[in-house]
Amino acid sequence: MPPATGPKSGDALFASVDRVNAELFTLTYGAIVRQLLTDLEEVEEVNKQLDQMGYNIGTRLVDEFLAKSNVSRCVDFKETADVIAKLGFKMFLGVTATVTNWDAEGTSCSFVLEDNPLVDFVELPDTCQGLQYCNVLSGVIRGALEMVSMKTEVTWVRDMLRGDDAYEMRVKLTKQVPEEYPYKDDD
Amino acid sequence: MPPATGPKSGDALFASVDRVNAELFTLTYGAIVRQLLTDLEEVEEVNKQLDQMGYNIGTRLVDEFLAKSNVSRCVDFKETADVIAKLGFKMFLGVTATVTNWDAEGTSCSFVLEDNPLVDFVELPDTCQGLQYCNVLSGVIRGALEMVSMKTEVTWVRDMLRGDDAYEMRVKLTKQVPEEYPYKDDD
Repeated sequence: MPPATGPKSGDALFASVDRVNAELFTLTYGAIVRQLLTDLEEVEEVNKQLDQMGYNIGTRLVDEFLAKSNVSRCVDFKETADVIAKLGFKMFLGVTATVTNWDAEGTSCSFVLEDNPLVDFVELPDTCQGLQYCNVLSGVIRGALEMVSMKTEVTWVRDMLRGDDAYEMRVKLTKQVPEEYPYKDDD
Repeated sequence: MPPATGPKSGDALFASVDRVNAELFTLTYGAIVRQLLTDLEEVEEVNKQLDQMGYNIGTRLVDEFLAKSNVSRCVDFKETADVIAKLGFKMFLGVTATVTNWDAEGTSCSFVLEDNPLVDFVELPDTCQGLQYCNVLSGVIRGALEMVSMKTEVTWVRDMLRGDDAYEMRVKLTKQVPEEYPYKDDD
């Protein structure tokens, strides 16, 4: 049965959820990164760990997103990407992303972030130049998409902390698992 | 010179700051705690580390608080505690606390939290019974107060994750450093 109403707007969605101060979040995330750098020493290991944390978080957040957004099934990856950019980023971070740089097959695109609350006050010291500071975000996207049957690879192609002019995350759909319905609506 | 206007209300203050989704914050904080448990093994060490993280965060957050709240100098510890409970908690976590259980000297009191966004969805496994999950909060209070010349000891005396009926944080003022003014207003 289709939902009685369409999806909420990003602003309405963001207004409908409990929120905390963005600076507290930013500093808390910064504390994780610092802790991992101290514990793991290898920047590459820190990148992996942040991605894995994000993945775990994403697999949980997708439930809140689906429950509150009134988004019904997306017809394809393209629509899914639009929903993430306009509603997903807004609902969780209070910002929106632009979807761009589609490949010909419609299976790879980029999210470009206009604003990134994760990196306020952050500067990378010279010893951390290989650090993918925002890997938690790419992990979240990967984890959330996997919960709706889309396997993806997500990588950062531009990062302002590393001197680029924007934050650009590349999302490549590698496998779409057809959903099966062993149950009926009236079960 | 007194500020032109009085302090903002907690609601106005919370509305005036950038915010992110509380569930994202909760899950991110949970990821730190899990990471520390994995890395440090000893629960007591995790408690210390969370407190220290909170302290570092508190020393930063106090600036945003003073800049945005229009709060002028508090006359004593009692007024300071009220400001933290009504404005501080609201500005950063979106909740308020009750100040209670004052000692006769007016140097120890409790903050009782009606709602605690840090612990949504959290259950402690049996192996973590000594964990002070919310130590980051007590650390924040300690760090923030130290920046305004009040040395404190902050401990949890009730914790719902450990079976108590509320979250109660005990704050004891141990030393108040008189502020000195080597500069003049018109410097």
